[in-house]
Parts: sequence; structure tokens; C-alpha cells
Amino acid sequence: MTATPDSPAGDGVLSVGMVGYAFMGAAHSHAWRTAPRFFDLPLRPRMTAVAGRDAQGVQAAAERLGWDSTETSWQALVDRDDIDLVDVCTPGHTHAEIVIAALEAGKHVLCEKPLANSVEEAEAMTLAAEKAAAGGVRAMVGFTYRRVPAISFARQLVADGRLGTIHHVRAQYLQDWIVDPEAPLSWRLEKDKAGSGSLGDIGAHIIDIAQFITGDTISRVSGRLRTFVEERPQPSEHSGLSGTAGSGTGKVTVDDAATFLADFRSGAMGVFEATRFANGRKNAIRIEINGSRGSLAFDFEDMNVLHFFDGTEDAGTAGFRRILVTEPQHPYVAAWWPAGHVIGYEHGFTHQVVDLVRDIAAGTDPTPSFADGLQVQRVLAAVETSSDTDTWQEIPA
Amino acid sequence: MTATPDSPAGDGVLSVGMVGYAFMGAAHSHAWRTAPRFFDLPLRPRMTAVAGRDAQGVQAAAERLGWDSTETSWQALVDRDDIDLVDVCTPGHTHAEIVIAALEAGKHVLCEKPLANSVEEAEAMTLAAEKAAAGGVRAMVGFTYRRVPAISFARQLVADGRLGTIHHVRAQYLQDWIVDPEAPLSWRLEKDKAGSGSLGDIGAHIIDIAQFITGDTISRVSGRLRTFVEERPQPSEHSGLSGTAGSGTGKVTVDDAATFLADFRSGAMGVFEATRFANGRKNAIRIEINGSRGSLAFDFEDMNVLHFFDGTEDAGTAGFRRILVTEPQHPYVAAWWPAGHVIGYEHGFTHQVVDLVRDIAAGTDPTPSFADGLQVQRVLAAVETSSDTDTWQEIPA
Amino acid sequence: MTATPDSPAGDGVLSVGMVGYAFMGAAHSHAWRTAPRFFDLPLRPRMTAVAGRDAQGVQAAAERLGWDSTETSWQALVDRDDIDLVDVCTPGHTHAEIVIAALEAGKHVLCEKPLANSVEEAEAMTLAAEKAAAGGVRAMVGFTYRRVPAISFARQLVADGRLGTIHHVRAQYLQDWIVDPEAPLSWRLEKDKAGSGSLGDIGAHIIDIAQFITGDTISRVSGRLRTFVEERPQPSEHSGLSGTAGSGTGKVTVDDAATFLADFRSGAMGVFEATRFANGRKNAIRIEINGSRGSLAFDFEDMNVLHFFDGTEDAGTAGFRRILVTEPQHPYVAAWWPAGHVIGYEHGFTHQVVDLVRDIAAGTDPTPSFADGLQVQRVLAAVETSSDTDTWQEIPA
Amino acid sequence: MTATPDSPAGDGVLSVGMVGYAFMGAAHSHAWRTAPRFFDLPLRPRMTAVAGRDAQGVQAAAERLGWDSTETSWQALVDRDDIDLVDVCTPGHTHAEIVIAALEAGKHVLCEKPLANSVEEAEAMTLAAEKAAAGGVRAMVGFTYRRVPAISFARQLVADGRLGTIHHVRAQYLQDWIVDPEAPLSWRLEKDKAGSGSLGDIGAHIIDIAQFITGDTISRVSGRLRTFVEERPQPSEHSGLSGTAGSGTGKVTVDDAATFLADFRSGAMGVFEATRFANGRKNAIRIEINGSRGSLAFDFEDMNVLHFFDGTEDAGTAGFRRILVTEPQHPYVAAWWPAGHVIGYEHGFTHQVVDLVRDIAAGTDPTPSFADGLQVQRVLAAVETSSDTDTWQEIPA
Repeated sequence: MTATPDSPAGDGVLSVGMVGYAFMGAAHSHAWRTAPRFFDLPLRPRMTAVAGRDAQGVQAAAERLGWDSTETSWQALVDRDDIDLVDVCTPGHTHAEIVIAALEAGKHVLCEKPLANSVEEAEAMTLAAEKAAAGGVRAMVGFTYRRVPAISFARQLVADGRLGTIHHVRAQYLQDWIVDPEAPLSWRLEKDKAGSGSLGDIGAHIIDIAQFITGDTISRVSGRLRTFVEERPQPSEHSGLSGTAGSGTGKVTVDDAATFLADFRSGAMGVFEATRFANGRKNAIRIEINGSRGSLAFDFEDMNVLHFFDGTEDAGTAGFRRILVTEPQHPYVAAWWPAGHVIGYEHGFTHQVVDLVRDIAAGTDPTPSFADGLQVQRVLAAVETSSDTDTWQEIPA
Repeated sequence: MTATPDSPAGDGVLSVGMVGYAFMGAAHSHAWRTAPRFFDLPLRPRMTAVAGRDAQGVQAAAERLGWDSTETSWQALVDRDDIDLVDVCTPGHTHAEIVIAALEAGKHVLCEKPLANSVEEAEAMTLAAEKAAAGGVRAMVGFTYRRVPAISFARQLVADGRLGTIHHVRAQYLQDWIVDPEAPLSWRLEKDKAGSGSLGDIGAHIIDIAQFITGDTISRVSGRLRTFVEERPQPSEHSGLSGTAGSGTGKVTVDDAATFLADFRSGAMGVFEATRFANGRKNAIRIEINGSRGSLAFDFEDMNVLHFFDGTEDAGTAGFRRILVTEPQHPYVAAWWPAGHVIGYEHGFTHQVVDLVRDIAAGTDPTPSFADGLQVQRVLAAVETSSDTDTWQEIPA
Repeated sequence: MTATPDSPAGDGVLSVGMVGYAFMGAAHSHAWRTAPRFFDLPLRPRMTAVAGRDAQGVQAAAERLGWDSTETSWQALVDRDDIDLVDVCTPGHTHAEIVIAALEAGKHVLCEKPLANSVEEAEAMTLAAEKAAAGGVRAMVGFTYRRVPAISFARQLVADGRLGTIHHVRAQYLQDWIVDPEAPLSWRLEKDKAGSGSLGDIGAHIIDIAQFITGDTISRVSGRLRTFVEERPQPSEHSGLSGTAGSGTGKVTVDDAATFLADFRSGAMGVFEATRFANGRKNAIRIEINGSRGSLAFDFEDMNVLHFFDGTEDAGTAGFRRILVTEPQHPYVAAWWPAGHVIGYEHGFTHQVVDLVRDIAAGTDPTPSFADGLQVQRVLAAVETSSDTDTWQEIPA
Repeated sequence: MTATPDSPAGDGVLSVGMVGYAFMGAAHSHAWRTAPRFFDLPLRPRMTAVAGRDAQGVQAAAERLGWDSTETSWQALVDRDDIDLVDVCTPGHTHAEIVIAALEAGKHVLCEKPLANSVEEAEAMTLAAEKAAAGGVRAMVGFTYRRVPAISFARQLVADGRLGTIHHVRAQYLQDWIVDPEAPLSWRLEKDKAGSGSLGDIGAHIIDIAQFITGDTISRVSGRLRTFVEERPQPSEHSGLSGTAGSGTGKVTVDDAATFLADFRSGAMGVFEATRFANGRKNAIRIEINGSRGSLAFDFEDMNVLHFFDGTEDAGTAGFRRILVTEPQHPYVAAWWPAGHVIGYEHGFTHQVVDLVRDIAAGTDPTPSFADGLQVQRVLAAVETSSDTDTWQEIPA
């Protein structure tokens, strides 16, 4: 029988085990290390173990990223009694198996997005999370951009009625890292590993952000997926984004770009676009929301700024306000630096850890939940079906 | 028998008659008056007559706008021997009749956009224009934004191959003048007069701009129209954009907003949005184009600037360039002021007159032609049908 | 004996004679032609005559710019009975003589800035204007940027107390047209004609703008002038900004750049910079004002926008507002286009004519007056002396 | 006898002791903790001890910030054998004593800026550093903004000749945290503790940045200091920036704002402004540099962006490039995230630690050296004297 999962030893410590140690693993490690240094946390995270299949690789990662021990299988990690929480940073096709096992072992779970590569897997995971929740086990999916202060503050403004009724949502996630047709294949371009391309990888983020800020959900979509470059050089070795080309070519089996129209349940109209072919845009998560009382605009390339138009002001002095979201009254900000001292990409991960640890200690369910992750998965699936069939697709409520 | 239409009197003068004298009439009048003062023109425009149904109104307009005489019917204007060119600035539902009569009378025609309120009318007009062209009569549709120097220059960059293969077009025309549900009905919100709402009025512009810059055409669309406010107060009198409310309400019979996905023939993906409900955006014509070699971005609210990303530059120093399109080598600019001295909205109309007069004198067909206007009309119709039927619609080449 | 100068013939016409027809002449002509077409004017301007020394040149200019007749000397123009107002668009060293003669002949005067090339001349002109004013003759100096709607609106905000006590004024006028050391000499680089360089030519504008917006005057300066390129190729002919190089070189006798610190009488601190060597800045008139209750920022390269920070707002939602100064309630704007339809450089000249004509008809003294022009001249002289002597210099109140 | 100071135990560890633990202490702690997780360092920093006068306070800080032990006097810390490097984060008036003692004890030193509160102290410290350097002891002053990638990259562009001869430097450091006259006194407003106000606190940064980027030094200044609010409420307790008012008032003995003109040795003209009264500007470090071949512009409020104008490009496509300084080839960036994933304020401190550790291991002198810090101090002193005496002041080479 499992002890209360937040702290088996009752020692005020939350013992964390992480699976995977690439880009996301580095970001998560930084967050676990940094959160307790800037925020008051009810439990002290301990970076107990990291798991990876390659013994040498995981050892080096543990040293580099600051984990106390290593495992060469995720199963071994999940089996350890001294782990309270499993942090899953592996590619999407592995999520379901690891996460379900961890939840069944009574571990809290933080799972990177997308929750899974298919609706079916996501459903199974959500079910597992609901079952585990009954036993006090918490599960969260890592839509980390929610914790960018400007985005979090945007949600507050909408919730406070500052935008009125929402009419329009236009959201784009623009990158350009494979615009060069000679950029090599990576696992992110292979459907069996990545699940989908720009849609699942980055489109998932703007779906979550749009729904998070508006507090609304998408009910219907008409989408279009495209693969501009269908054949690419094989990478010279298993390499990431910066990989160099090897010999031979391989087939790109995911979308390079995705666009879709969306209806929101409340009646708002949405326009979404996710692409890795927007030359010159590196990580431009842009969202603009127009309501009957005001509007918002955000671009992650200038992530500390939120533009807000208050339509109730006198027309002579009304204008989009460039709010530098670094004031103590803005979400998460008071823990960091004085006003005007901007923060960066990884801070969202630290905020994610802060909120998760607090929820675990308080015994409350963290958000975004697996159900939220599943709902995003359903939107992704609907867009894909829509594109395949040239029809509008409904998303069940 | 008709004399050579450019200058019946062979006196180097192009005698102009204008029909309609509201917002567009003022802009066109300014253009006819201003063009010869800044540009070398092969024919000197004479502002001979303006026509309108209200005798007092047209008389006042003639004095205000600087026309030598008036007519109280467009037929009378078209019948006059001393008119070489008819400039049609009336609402769209009147275009076909006036324009066809003028062309048949051997007059050159400048017709405000949209060419007509239906594909059928636009087809008839295009046919009439083609017939007239055989006799040396010229016809042009007034998609004036093509003549904004930044947009004209954007087309040059694409034509010069600076963008490579186009992957993405995202275009928005955002206004907010009826976001207030108490804003009164205007003729622009009534289908029988306006033909369509945001789609035809402003969506037409971004369709034309997108096709103009890329040199490509839209082949397929999936669209969505919405009327957010279906009932509005009647205006207190026949009033324009700034009308005040009278008694009773009336039905809004056009769309408040339109969104659509588009395929371009070359393979580019398009995302379009036209709305009068984008709170805080006044006349934001925004277009962004991503190609394999570079990208462009433009916003009419800062109309003298074109942002250009050259993807062939070294990654370390590459970045969107804010080009202030006020250099002598930029289109149309040398005629105006020194570099950095920005121009405004009405200059596009002046450039339109310049190009039209030069084409008439040279005996060449002006662009955008009525066929171009018809093609835009077909895209508009396809979007509307798509929205009505939840299907993708093809646009014939 | 002179009739009432506004309209000698009592015919509701204001008959204008212009001296000079280069860059400024073109801008002024456009303004005289355009003002009555968009604004209700109490007197109708007639473009009666233009004067210039070169008979052919002035004839061509009259045709191009739309003047009814020509004179080959300014004296002949001033002597004409059918001229009510003399508009002086010649280089600064000629202003005093022409203007004083015109005033003495009972003509209203619009004089381009800078008022003169020396304080002494400016004093004499101001004296002449004051004498003439007693007889109902009006005089205005052409600091036209005051009439850019955003700048005019900025003054309103300050006057309405929206900025509170002003602490800081930072103003820059940045150009780059002679950054190339091979750019040829022009009359603007010769002290005997131009009076001074960047300081008098463009620095004068930001001094006037800063004092106009704040409603305050500069009391003390510490300045620094520099000539970066002291020898330049002779122009191939008498050419303007776009001149090409001829043979031989000549000495640049004016400043290329000027910087100065300023104290305002109210206690605000000023920092000013005028240069023709700011590579990449074409006509960047930038001013930023910080007060106890709010701040303003403006850049002429985006001239339809005023940035306003309201420091009395809640810190969470405070931010610089990007006000698009195209609303009907903004100064001058209602006469033009719907909101969001931006205007350009020459509109300031049209507004200048509007205000001047209205003042003449109303019998009120226009601003900026010659006394205002003289005060700017005194600041310029103080900056120059300060630079020569490495001392702070006072400007008399 | 002192062991080799880099690693007395020869164990590849650099043992750090920090004095002070307020705002700067938190930033430095984060840097020591984070640097080895993202960068390959030749020595592993150990956060051995932190010193502060208040036993409870320093204990809490050690736990919060992650230091292994505490001392309640800086002397005790300096005396410890197990400390290789002393990191001084206390207010400026304490620097000289601590730093000189640490250097004499054979410890490497990282000293926060400004180096000292007077030129005399800075001279003594520089002398001590030079003496210690002979024994292999390294000293660095913490002008951390040099290590913002965009600023570091700006220096590279200048060094590579991309700007040509520098003509203009305009630099501003704008804050607004005491614009409210009811904001309480803090130690930063008292001359005996803070040395100077906006000039020394934030003006020092822009002097260093301007000299760093240009590779040039200031030779002469004309300055102006102002205290807008001379009397302020006493703080309710010893509080920082966010302090609340207590009873009684106290005198502000430092400048609220400082402006100065500067000559650079190479001939460039500088304009500097540092203020805490720029309403709406939170931490706007803005620098713009114009040279004969190009220009640069930077604003810390958007710290991942550098604007670069290449004046050698064709005028038609030239424009300020918005370079997102997040590419692998940009300084420091490769260690962090993929392109477009922006970093924040504290990363500069991490980069500072990286460079310092590498210099210590390599036996090379780090920059900025104490001599660099002294030179900045001399500029500050010259500005102050200039303001007091209304004269230009020379800065010795």
C-alpha cells in the first residue's frame, strides 16, 4: 500500500524522477532546481533520479542537469519507492505507457505535451488519472506557456470581463527551422514517433493558449494540413533540431504546416495557423483576441509584453497599451526581479513546477489536467480528419 | 461615330466625369486634382462634371470638390460629348448599369471596387470592357491599395524572386466601426445595396492585395461568415459611418466578419480574415507572406513601412528589415517628398489616376482590369457559398 | 491707402503670392490648393502669382504647381495690388528683406522657418510684424510640424494636465542624407546661405515642437556642434538633396550635427539632438516627454501615432498606449478620412493654411508668431555660442 | 603562503563566498547555481558561504539562495581558507574595504558595480587588483549588461567594422520608480550610502555599455544633475524599492536624474541620460549608435532584440533589421534554448560567471577589469563636477 504520495517520508520533500533528458529534460531540470530558490514552496523538490535508455548518456545528463541518481529504464524509475512524482519528458508516442504505469504506482505525474499521439491513448491516460486522483495522486500536462506571466494575465483580463464578449481569436505559432529543403529528417518529422508535425507539436500550444485565455472551447473546425517538402536527407546521426545531413533521403510523414478555422462554443470565430515554414519567425506564438469591450495581442518573441486595448476608454486617448508584464501585481512576477527586468522562456517551466507543488501539497487538482490535454488532442484529431476529408468536424464538449 | 476616346478634342486633355460624391468621390476628386501637380502626365485631366441625383447635393459637392459642372443623372453624364472618362464612385449595386452604358458610349471607365455585387454582373461588365477595349476604350477597377508604395514594392520583391517559393499568405483586414451593437444600420449593412458586408467591402481588398503581391491566384476556399449583431437601430437619417441612431431597429443582412482558408494555385496556403469587429483596429490591412527565400509583412496602419526578411542572409545578422518605403527608387515615391517624409491614404488614389492616364495615353490596358475584378468577385462568391454549405469551393482559373 | 488686407476686393477671396518654388514651394502650393477642398474656410484662397528670378523656371513652376501668373522678382510680387498675402518659401538668408517689405506693403505674410539666419534679422522682422499687426496685417512662421495631428494632440494632453509636471524632454531630429562623405556640397551646407546646418534646419523644428507641446520655453543651454566631413565635392550643378558630384571640392561651413542640454523655465530637463549623420534614420523627428502624471512619445516616421502613458492608471494595466491619431475628435482629422486612414507629411502644410486663413478672417493673430520664431532663433544662437565657448548660455525670457 | 587561488585543493572546484544577499545577491546566487548546468566550465563553482551582519537574515538567505554555510562578518568570510573567490554584492560605500582585504588574502574578486562611490576608492581598489594580479589573483567588476547577448553581439558588429566610423552615441537609462513624490526614502537616495543617485546607479551602466560596444572611451563631458523631489517620507522600516512610507520626512541627497553631452576620443558625439523619473519606463536601457556604414539600436525592455541598419545595402531594401539574438551563432546563446526561445535579465549574471570562471581557469584577466570600473568612475565624477561648475570636464585617458 502506498503512503500519501506527496511525501512518503512525511519529511516535507517531494522526490522527483524524470524520464528523458533532451531539450525538455533540461528545461524541467532547471525548473525543479530554480523554483524553491525564488518561490515559497510547501514541499521541497528533490531531484532524485533521471531515467534514460543509454547508460552513459543518462549518467552524463544526471551530472549536467543535477540529478542525484540514474536509471536505464523508466520502469525502474517508476518502481522506486523513493520517488513521489514522475516527470515525463520523452517523445509523445511513449507517454501513455509510462504515465499510466506511474499513476498506477501511485506517483504524481507531470507529462509533457502533447498528452499523447492519439485520442485513444489520451483517453486511457485521462481515465488512469481520474482513477488515481481518487487516491490523492495528481496529474498535470505541461502546457507551459499558460504560465508565461503575460498569458496568465491575459486570462485574468478576460475573466474580469475587460474584453466583454469574445468575437475573434487569431492565433499563430510560426517557426522556420525546416524551411530549408535540405534540413535533415528528425524524429519530429516522422509520424510514428512524433504523432503529427507542426499541428501536434506547436499547434497544440496555441489551441491550449487560446482556450485557456478565453475560458472557452473549440466546437468545430475546418482544417488544412500541408507537407511542403516530402523528401529530406537522412540525418548524419540521431540528431536534434540542429542535425546535419547524412546519406540518403527519407520521407517526411507529418505536416509542415496546418491552418484551420474554428468555432468556439460561445460564438467566437477562430483562425489558427501552425507552421515550421514561416521564414524569419523563430518562435512566434502570436495571439490576438477581440471582444466587445476590448482586445488583446501577444507575441512570444516579445514575451514580457501584453498589448491591451480598452474599448471603453474615450476614443481620443484609446489605444493598444503596451503593458510590460513585470509588475509585482502580475502573475508570478513578484518572485523575480524589480519592474522592467524581463524574464525568459524557461521561467514558464519554473512557474509550472511552483503551481504543481502547491497543488500537490494542498491536495487540489492541478491544471491543465489530463482531461484538458485530451480535449486538445480531440481538436488536433478533428483538424486532421477535417483536412483529410475536406469537411468541418465537430469536437464533442 | 466616336472620336479617339482619350482626347476627343485632340487637345491633350482627358475630360473626366464622376458619378457619386461621397467618401470615395472625395478621394477620387483629390486624386484627379493632385496627380498632374506632382507627376508628369501625358494628358491633363479636366474635372468636367460630377453627377448625383440630388441637385443641391451635387451642386455643393461640385463646389467643394472642384468639378466644373453637374448632372443630376448618371445617364446625362454618360451622354455628354465632352466627357472622355467616367469615374464610378457609387455603391456596388449600381456599378453594372452605369459602367456598361459608359463603355458602350465609348467612355473610358474607372470603377470603384468591388466591381459589382454579383458574379453575374461582374461577368457582364467584363464582357463589356473586353468589347470596348477593341475600340480603344480602357477600363480599370479601383483596387487602390495596389498603389500604396509599400505594397507595390512588395510585389516587385516577389517578382524579383526575393521570397522564393511562396508557402504562406496570411491577410487580415481589421476594423471596429460597428463593434458597438448600438451603432446604427447603414446601407453598408444591407445586402441589397452593399452586396455583402465585411467580405465584399474589405475582404475584397485583401484578396486583391494577396493575389497582386504574389502574382498568384486562389483556387479553393473554405469560409465562414458571421453576423454578430443581427438587429440594429435605424439611422436617424441617411448617414454614413458616423451616423447617429434614429427610432426603430432594422435587420443586418450582411456579414460582420468573414474568415477563410485558401489554396493558391502555386501551392501556397492562405488564411484570410475580414472583420468590422476587431476592437481597436481601425483600418488594419495586414499581410504577411512567407517564402522559401524570405518573408514580407505589412500593416496599413503604418503604411509607409514594409518589413522584409531576407532568408539568404547570414543567420547572425538576418532579421526583418523595417524598410521605410520613401526612397526615390521605391514605386511612385520620387514624385513626392524627400526620403522619410511619409505619405498617406489618399496617395494611392493619386497613383491610380497617374497609372490610368498613362495607360490611356499609351493605348495600353490598365490593371487591375475588370477581369481581375471579376476574379475577385468569384473568390468572394466562393467564400459565401462555402460558408453556406460547409464545403470547400473551387474558383475557376 | 490699403484696403482691409484680408480681402481687398471684399470678395471673400484671399489672394496669395508665393516667393520661391522649390521643395517648400511645392508643399505650400499643395496646401493652398487642397485646404478649401477639405475644410470650410471663411476666405477662398486664390493662387494668384508665384515669383522667382529665373523666368523660365518660374513659368514652369507656375504651370506645374498651379499658380495663375508669375513674377521674376519678389519686389514685383510684393508691389502687386491684387495680392493679399505673401508666402515666403526662399532660403533663410532672404527672409528678412522680403518679409519686411511685404509687411510694409500691408500684405499678410507666411514665412518658412527658420524665421531668419540671425537673431538680428529675426528681431527686425518681429518688429515689423508687430507694427503691421496694428494695421490688421497678420504674420506667421511656418513651423508646420505643430499641425501634425499627433503633435497638436500631444499639446492638448499636456495642456489638459494629463502629464502633470514635466520632468524630461528628449527630442531628436535624425536624418542621414549626407552621411556619405562623397555627397556633394549643397547650399544647405554653406553658412552664408543656410545660416546654420543641422541646428538651424532641423534642430529649429524640435525646439519649436518641444516648446509647443510643453507650453514652456528653454531658458539655458549647453551645446555642441560638429562638422564630421569638412570638405565635400562640388555639386555638378545647382542641385538639391539629390545632387550629383561635380569637379573640385568645397568647404562645409555649417554643422553636420548638434547636441545640447537644455533647462526649461518650469524646471524640466531637456536633451536635444539634430543630425544629418544618423545612418538609417530618414526623417525621424522623435520626442519623448515624461511628466509626474504621464508620458508621451512620438516619431515622425510613424506620424499618425502618438504613444501616451497614463501614470494614474492601475500599474497592472498601465502601459504606453499606441493612439492612432485618426479619430474625428483628434485635431484636424475630421476633415479627412475615416478612422485608421492615415495622412502624410504634406497635411501639416494644409492645416497651416487652414489655421492662417481662419485667423486672417477672424482678425486674430496666428501662431507661431514671428515672436515665437525669434525666440527659437535665440535658442539656436545660444546653442551656437555655447558650443563656441564651452559655456552654458541663457536665453532671455 | 597562498595556494594557487583558483583551486587551493586542486580539486577542480572554485569555492565561492558571497557578501550581501539582497537583490544582487539573489541574482549572483542564481548565476553560480545555473552556470555549470548550461555551460561547460573548467572549474565547478561551489557555493560555500554567504556573509551578512544579521545572523538570522543571513541564515535564511543561505537556505533560500542555496549557500552551504554563513558568516556574520565579511572579514570572517575573507579569512576562510576554503574560499577561492569573494563575490561582493553590498552597497557601493563598502566595496573598497571588502575588496581590498579579499585581494590581499589572495582571493579572486567579483565586485558589483559601481566599483566604488568615489574615484579615490576606485583607484585604491584598482591598485590592489593590479598588485594581486601579479600573484594570479583575478578581479572583475560586475557590469553585467555587457553579457546580454544583444549587447555583446553589438560590440562584435562594431569591432567587425559593420558600423564604420562612429558618429553618434545616444544612450538612456530610464526608470520611474520614484516619480511619485510620496515614494519613501531608501538607502539609494542617500549620498553617504549610495554615492550618487541615478547617475552612479544606472548612468554607470550606460557609460559602460556605450564604451564597451564602441570600443572607445569618453574624453569630455558637460553634465546636468537634478533632484526633482528634495524631501521624501521616511520609509516605515529598512525597505527596498517597494518600501512603504513611515513617519517624518528626510532629505534626498542624490540626483534624481542626470543628463550629459560627451565627446568620445575617436570623435563621436554622445548624449546620455539617466533618470528615475521617466514615467512608464521601467528599465529602459536604450542605446543607439550611428556610424558611417551602419547603425544599431537596443532597448533592454525587449532585450533579445538588436536593431541593425546596414548602410551599405541597396537603399531600396535597406532598413533596420530586427535581429532576434537567439541564434546559436550569437554570443552565449548556444548553451540555452532553440532559436526564438528568449532569455531574461538574470542570464547576464550567468554569463558573467561563465566568463569569470573560464578566465580564472585559463589564468587570463577578466573584463571589465577594475581599471575599467575606475574609468567609469572618473566619467561619473566628471559629470558631477561639470554639473556643479557649469563647465566641460576632461576625463584623463
